[in-house]
Amino acid sequence: MGELTFLKELYPLYEDAVKKARVRMDNLIKPLGSLGTLEEMAIRLSGITGKLHNEVNKKAIVIMCSDNGVCEEGVASAPQIVTLTQTINFLRGITGVAVLSKHNRCDLKVVDIGVKEDITISGLITKKIRKGTWNSAKGEAMTREEALKAIHIGFDLVRELKEEGYNLIGTGEMGIGNTTTSSSVLLALTGCSIDEGVGRGAGLKDEQFFHKKEVIKKILQVNKPVKEDPIDVLHKVGGFDIAGMVGLYLGAAYYRIPIVVDGFISAVAALAAYKINPLTKDFMFPSHISKEKGYNRAINEIGLDPILNLGMRLGEGSGCPLAFNIIEAATVIMNNMATFEEGDVDIENYKDLWKEEAK
Amino acid sequence: MGELTFLKELYPLYEDAVKKARVRMDNLIKPLGSLGTLEEMAIRLSGITGKLHNEVNKKAIVIMCSDNGVCEEGVASAPQIVTLTQTINFLRGITGVAVLSKHNRCDLKVVDIGVKEDITISGLITKKIRKGTWNSAKGEAMTREEALKAIHIGFDLVRELKEEGYNLIGTGEMGIGNTTTSSSVLLALTGCSIDEGVGRGAGLKDEQFFHKKEVIKKILQVNKPVKEDPIDVLHKVGGFDIAGMVGLYLGAAYYRIPIVVDGFISAVAALAAYKINPLTKDFMFPSHISKEKGYNRAINEIGLDPILNLGMRLGEGSGCPLAFNIIEAATVIMNNMATFEEGDVDIENYKDLWKEEAK
Repeated sequence: MGELTFLKELYPLYEDAVKKARVRMDNLIKPLGSLGTLEEMAIRLSGITGKLHNEVNKKAIVIMCSDNGVCEEGVASAPQIVTLTQTINFLRGITGVAVLSKHNRCDLKVVDIGVKEDITISGLITKKIRKGTWNSAKGEAMTREEALKAIHIGFDLVRELKEEGYNLIGTGEMGIGNTTTSSSVLLALTGCSIDEGVGRGAGLKDEQFFHKKEVIKKILQVNKPVKEDPIDVLHKVGGFDIAGMVGLYLGAAYYRIPIVVDGFISAVAALAAYKINPLTKDFMFPSHISKEKGYNRAINEIGLDPILNLGMRLGEGSGCPLAFNIIEAATVIMNNMATFEEGDVDIENYKDLWKEEAK
Repeated sequence: MGELTFLKELYPLYEDAVKKARVRMDNLIKPLGSLGTLEEMAIRLSGITGKLHNEVNKKAIVIMCSDNGVCEEGVASAPQIVTLTQTINFLRGITGVAVLSKHNRCDLKVVDIGVKEDITISGLITKKIRKGTWNSAKGEAMTREEALKAIHIGFDLVRELKEEGYNLIGTGEMGIGNTTTSSSVLLALTGCSIDEGVGRGAGLKDEQFFHKKEVIKKILQVNKPVKEDPIDVLHKVGGFDIAGMVGLYLGAAYYRIPIVVDGFISAVAALAAYKINPLTKDFMFPSHISKEKGYNRAINEIGLDPILNLGMRLGEGSGCPLAFNIIEAATVIMNNMATFEEGDVDIENYKDLWKEEAK
C-alpha cells in the first residue's frame, strides 16, 4: 500500500483521554455500565479527540454517487438512470436520507464521483473520475490508479469537512448496481459464500436473484482479486462510490473525526478500510442492522455492533442521521449528567453500593 | 375488571387511516418496504390519530416514583433512600433520563405515587397513594383498591397531557426494589421460570442475586396471585410505580396517543396492560432492548420488536427520548419524502420496477 502515504500517520485512540473519560463515566449517578453503548461511545469520542467533553454540533453525510458498468449484466431491479435521478433528488431534499438529515439537522454533501451522465446542479460536489466503471463481469471495473484516486477524493473531503468545523460525519451512496459490486468486494475480502454475501438489493425476484449470483461468480472468476490487497479488490470488482467511501473512513481516522457506517455498501467500504488499516475501526460508529444480506458478515468482520434495529435497507446514508442523534446523546451523558460528587443530595451510601456491586 | 369502566371504550387502530397511510408510504421514492420499521411506525401513528400526516412536537416522559416494602428483604443493591434522591435529581435535571430528555426536547413529568418520604419540591406531581407498599414477601403489597387507584392516576395523567397538547409520551420509573416487584409480576402473569424472569437489577453480586430469587419465590408462594387477573397480580406482588404505568398504557389507548415502552419495569407494566386489554398493544412503541433479565420475555409476550440495541439497563425512562427521535423520524418520512408522482424528474421507469419487484 505504498500508494497511500498517509497510512503511516494513522494513530490509535488517545489512551490518556480514554482513561479520564472512563473515570468520569463511572462516577456519574447511575449503576456502573448501565448506559451501555452510550457510555462506550462517549469514551471513544474522547479517545478520538483527546478531549473529555465533546460536542457534536456540525454534522454532514457524504453521499458518493456513481454508476457501475456491471449493470449491463442485468443485476439491478432499477434502470441505471436512477443513479442520476436520485443524485438530483438528494439535492432537492426529497429522498429518505434528505428528509431524515433535515430532521436531525445535518448537512448533505452530495458527490458525483462517477455518475454516467453530466450533471450541472447547484450544490453538487463534482469529483467525477469517469462516467461509470467498466463492466466487472468482463474485466477490471477501474484501474488501480483510479481506485487510489477515488480513495484520495474521499480522504481529501474529510479534511475539508474538518476544516469547515464538522465534528461528525456519515457515509452514504447512490449507484444502481452497487449491491453487486459490494457483494463482490465482500466475497473477495472475506472468502464468504455467495449465500452469505449476496442479497436481493432493492428487490430482485427469484430468477433475477439467481442471475445476480451467477454474475458475481463470474466477476470473481474473471478478475481473480487478491484477498490480501484491498486496493486490488476495489479496483477490479468495486465501484467509485465504494472506493470513495474507503477514503472517507481512512480520512476519518487520519483527521480524527468520528464516522458513521450506514448499511450494506457502507459497511463493505468500512471493511475494506479496516483491512487496509485496522486502526480505522476505532473511528467508526455503526448505525443500523441492514436487512440486505451480507451486511452482518461485513460488520462482524470489523467487530462492530450496530445500535439500531429498524429493518432498513434503503442505503443513501439513511441510517446516519438516526445514529447521529444517539451519538449526540452519548455526549450529553458525559457532559451533563452529575457525578456522585456533583450531586449534593446525600448519595454517599449508594455511591459505594452501586459502584462496588456492579458486575 | 368491572372496576375499570373505561375499558369498554378502547378501540382499535382506525383502519381507513392505516390503509391510506400505507398507500402513501408505498408511493414514496424508495424501494417498497426499504425503510422497515420507520414505515410501520408512521402507518401505526396514522391508525392511532386517524390522520395521514402526524407531527410530534410536544413530548413528555412520565416518571412514576415509589417505594417498595419488599426492600426489607434485602433484594436491592442500593438503599431505599435512593428513590427519594433520584426523584429529586430528575427535577434537578442531572440524571440520565433528564439530560437525554433535554437533548431531545421532551418534558419530564415526575410523579410521587408512593415515595416513602415527604417531598416538597417545585415541579413534582404529588399523587402519593401511601408511603411505600407493604412487604410482598409477607402479604399483599397493596390492596386491590390501591392498585386500581394507581391505575386511575396514570390514566388521568394521560388525559391531562393530551389536553395540554402532548402528542407522544414515554414511561419511566424510579423505585429501589422495583426489579423484584417487576419480576414477581412477570412470573405471575406468564408462568415463566425464575431464571428467565429475574435479573441482577442495578448490580447484585452472586450471593445477593441468589437471595433475590429466593425472595421472589416466597413472594409468589405467600400471595398466590391469580394469573388470569392482572389486577390481582399487581396489587399482591407489584408496586405503585408499576400500577401507575399500567394506567399510562391504558390511558394512551383510551386517549389515542402513542406511548413508548422503556426498559424492564416499563415492559412488565406494558405486559400487564396488554393482559388487561390487548388493544393497548397498537398504541405501544418499544424503545431499547434492556439488558435486565426478563425484559425479552415481557416484550416478546406482547409481541413488540425493540428498535434500539444499546445494552442499557438504567431505567428511569432513559430509552424514551432516544426512541422519540426515531418516531419523529418516521413522521418526517411520511410527511416530507416525495412520492413518485411528486418527484418531477423522470422516474416512471423505476417506479414500476421498484414497486413490482420488491418482495
